[in-house]
Amino acid sequence: MIKVLRLGHRAGRDDRISTHVGLTARQWGADQIVYSGEKDSNMLESLGDTVDRWGGETDIIYTENWKEQVREFEGLKIHLTMYGLRIDEEQENLQEQIEKNEDLMIIVGAEKVPRWIYENVDYNISVGNQPHSEIAALSVFMDRFLEIKEDFKDAEIEVEPSEDKKKTESLKDRQ
Amino acid sequence: MIKVLRLGHRAGRDDRISTHVGLTARQWGADQIVYSGEKDSNMLESLGDTVDRWGGETDIIYTENWKEQVREFEGLKIHLTMYGLRIDEEQENLQEQIEKNEDLMIIVGAEKVPRWIYENVDYNISVGNQPHSEIAALSVFMDRFLEIKEDFKDAEIEVEPSEDKKKTESLKDRQ
Repeated sequence: MIKVLRLGHRAGRDDRISTHVGLTARQWGADQIVYSGEKDSNMLESLGDTVDRWGGETDIIYTENWKEQVREFEGLKIHLTMYGLRIDEEQENLQEQIEKNEDLMIIVGAEKVPRWIYENVDYNISVGNQPHSEIAALSVFMDRFLEIKEDFKDAEIEVEPSEDKKKTESLKDRQ
Repeated sequence: MIKVLRLGHRAGRDDRISTHVGLTARQWGADQIVYSGEKDSNMLESLGDTVDRWGGETDIIYTENWKEQVREFEGLKIHLTMYGLRIDEEQENLQEQIEKNEDLMIIVGAEKVPRWIYENVDYNISVGNQPHSEIAALSVFMDRFLEIKEDFKDAEIEVEPSEDKKKTESLKDRQ
């Protein structure tokens, strides 16, 4: 089970960034995306619409209680931050840990992540120690340890990969 | 020489996404980031400030004439799009092409990329054929073929990677 926890969402200001976090989590097969911070029903609904249309079983959840999410999660907990240990140096170790644990939680933050997170996860990992895109960090982390997901259950539409065209196929009739 | 071209920027609405595109390009060593679409001096300045403070030699440029950018570029041109050929299937071929060409241009779009782009690049490549984060696509593409850059020239500040703390060091005195 793969869970992505997105901390500190700010309604309005973060809606597109948080949406990209969600699309990324889904693309590499997250089972659950948990948003915390300000509740943003528009963002949650619009992401939910995408999942409905393009398929898959990713749950999208909002919680005020992010501490409980972290505390009660029993698998491997990894926080991605520009201050963490270098992913290149931890690659093998992380690979082992991910194989050993059935469940994986990946945490990405907003501008200010509380110190509590740093101290209550298994690893703080950086994808570059530079000013950071949490979307880049999440996608690269997932791409290194997981696979790009291609089949999404109950999709209404799908892309046919093309050399130079936009090709989509409606799957509604098949269902 | 590595150039990232970001098409169709919309001032205001896209400023954070475009900033993340820039941070990502810089993190994997782009020499130049070219923005097109609406001119957004605030976004360009704030990204420029980050580069000044954190170092490196990434040029940030705005142009109205994105066609000229593509037409006059003489290296390998790759457009990242959810409609393109799958990166997993093109991995080896792309690796060869990237090694063969001295210069690489990576193009990422906004919501609507003109058909002209699809027809005037060497490859249209997808990082997942699903609704797409251009930041995720760019970072994963760069991570697969390039390296996370660690040393940035003339940085005023740098992070000391840590297991569980935010540690930064001011380098101003050293200069």
